[in-house]
Amino acid sequence: MSRLTIQANSHSYDVVIEAGIRHHLNQWVPDNYKEILVITDQEVASHYLDDVITSLQGRSVHTHVVPSGEASKSMSQYQVLLDKCIEVNLDRKSLIIALGGGMVGDLAGFTASTYLRGIDFIQMPTTILSHDSSVGGKVGINHPRGKNLIGSFFNPVGVLYDVETLHSLPSKEIRSGYGEVIKHALLSDRSWLEDLLETSFDNVRNARLIHDLEKGIQVKAGIVEKDEREQGIRKFLNLGHTLAHAIEAELGYGKITHGEAVAIGILFSLQLSERKAGATRLPVGSYVNWMERSGYPIHSIQTLQPVELLKRMKVDKKTVDHRVHMVLLKGIGEPCVVPVGDEEMLAELERFLNEVIQ
Amino acid sequence: MSRLTIQANSHSYDVVIEAGIRHHLNQWVPDNYKEILVITDQEVASHYLDDVITSLQGRSVHTHVVPSGEASKSMSQYQVLLDKCIEVNLDRKSLIIALGGGMVGDLAGFTASTYLRGIDFIQMPTTILSHDSSVGGKVGINHPRGKNLIGSFFNPVGVLYDVETLHSLPSKEIRSGYGEVIKHALLSDRSWLEDLLETSFDNVRNARLIHDLEKGIQVKAGIVEKDEREQGIRKFLNLGHTLAHAIEAELGYGKITHGEAVAIGILFSLQLSERKAGATRLPVGSYVNWMERSGYPIHSIQTLQPVELLKRMKVDKKTVDHRVHMVLLKGIGEPCVVPVGDEEMLAELERFLNEVIQ
Repeated sequence: MSRLTIQANSHSYDVVIEAGIRHHLNQWVPDNYKEILVITDQEVASHYLDDVITSLQGRSVHTHVVPSGEASKSMSQYQVLLDKCIEVNLDRKSLIIALGGGMVGDLAGFTASTYLRGIDFIQMPTTILSHDSSVGGKVGINHPRGKNLIGSFFNPVGVLYDVETLHSLPSKEIRSGYGEVIKHALLSDRSWLEDLLETSFDNVRNARLIHDLEKGIQVKAGIVEKDEREQGIRKFLNLGHTLAHAIEAELGYGKITHGEAVAIGILFSLQLSERKAGATRLPVGSYVNWMERSGYPIHSIQTLQPVELLKRMKVDKKTVDHRVHMVLLKGIGEPCVVPVGDEEMLAELERFLNEVIQ
Repeated sequence: MSRLTIQANSHSYDVVIEAGIRHHLNQWVPDNYKEILVITDQEVASHYLDDVITSLQGRSVHTHVVPSGEASKSMSQYQVLLDKCIEVNLDRKSLIIALGGGMVGDLAGFTASTYLRGIDFIQMPTTILSHDSSVGGKVGINHPRGKNLIGSFFNPVGVLYDVETLHSLPSKEIRSGYGEVIKHALLSDRSWLEDLLETSFDNVRNARLIHDLEKGIQVKAGIVEKDEREQGIRKFLNLGHTLAHAIEAELGYGKITHGEAVAIGILFSLQLSERKAGATRLPVGSYVNWMERSGYPIHSIQTLQPVELLKRMKVDKKTVDHRVHMVLLKGIGEPCVVPVGDEEMLAELERFLNEVIQ
């Protein structure tokens, strides 16, 4: 078992990483919650919902299952969930448990943050990717015009991470998770990064996984504890995300996993860092090799248009005065934010897409 | 000019009360906001929107006008507003101004709190009632099953109160505002209360109005500064509201003003306080006289059913473990919270409605 304490603005909470923790929830979920609503998706429900219900024996537990996939992070599912909260009479002393990946955590967390102006919720991540989203208090839903445009800052009262649930992940979800893991390495630690770039996903074992999740969460927590509201350094966590969000929106939500899009966005940022941030020692070559070896779907973006991508990038929350602000790296562990004008960005996107086609 | 500083959890902000402040907005709205979206309703727009636009000359100002009335505090108007924010490209350095009464403030504030996970907003109240809602950070929308069930805690960066805009209020809006003013007096100050109970709305002058608004805001601020998240004493501000919300929902939103419903709910609470909180010195008789003299529409509730009212009251956010928690008074300035069981509540509602019919 590993246990980290995160100091949020409003309260501190623990992240507990343990194999099989889903079987011992009565030990970890405080017993003053009389009503509990477990929100999950169809895929996760088929594997783990019964375990969770069984381990909450003796409590008043309600469940709600949304369709799997990013498309559920929508205004309409949000409304369905609010209706559900009211239907099962959740009050301010009730608890929502988000059992699933980032989509479920963001959707259930946004519901918890706005139902009765906020009730407690616990994150139970079931993907590698959600080591990222389950910590730091960002919750929200998508808008047809862009990802996460609607949301709030609202921290869980706990994160219970059962690494056993990661065994059922398909390979594209492992790739997706490691898109954020590698981002955390790029933001912090050259030796961890080099280690990751040599790893093949075919033989990721439990110990490796726990090590990477812990390190990733530590990097994230270290940043959000200093800047929860993204006034400053938290922006660095958006490395690779400005283009990634645009790619996801242009391809249509769910066509590519979030972390795969992030990995592609990171490649763009690494290249741009050499031209715009004076970076000279970035391992761009071995990063490309790692992406190819691991099967990141970089060619899926070759049909996209620079003009359309730029339009999407400008809806990004980091856009200020209509100029896109990119997170770049001066070196490993040395992020910075650089504004990029429209013409330059179009030329860079053009170049990047041409390279990808080859 | 009067100026109060409110210390919220996240930041402090000023409430400026001044006649004609709408004509001097460039002096009060910081000039680092490049994009400004003014949200108002049809009624207020017809009187004051031009003044506001004129006084923000030189800024990039967008406007959005929603239909007047509580029915606009809805999920559908919220979505329209989010679309508008995106359409006019508001970014994190943009500002929303809520120009109007509580409905506009709550709706625009909830939009500001969840657009890009929160952007700045300024309250410009145009009713007496919104001396209450514009301070304290509660924003939100209604659900068909109950008022304010969806929302968040999100404080404005400033409140600019132009008392000149109160001159255009119809008499039912003056009654509505004084429903909350009298609540603040009941929670704090017997001599102010006695003074109010002797006042007739026919001759409320500017000086009286400014005095009452200042005192009301001071009472509210004094409580929310100590308990923004309503963990404890902030509950006292719900005096009269548990029944008021039920009345508004049962009659249909907009059929009775909020403050008129609160004034009726307070009467119920005062009577209940004598039986359930040991109160002996409450001025119930002069309160009834004041209501009748001022034209509060107490008879409008005589068609309502106790069973239906109780159902509504149980959806209230203060309900814990399915028991209604009522704010009562042990004396003037001495509020308390008392749980009331279903049967007793039904009997009390029955008695109250029978009295009203007479």
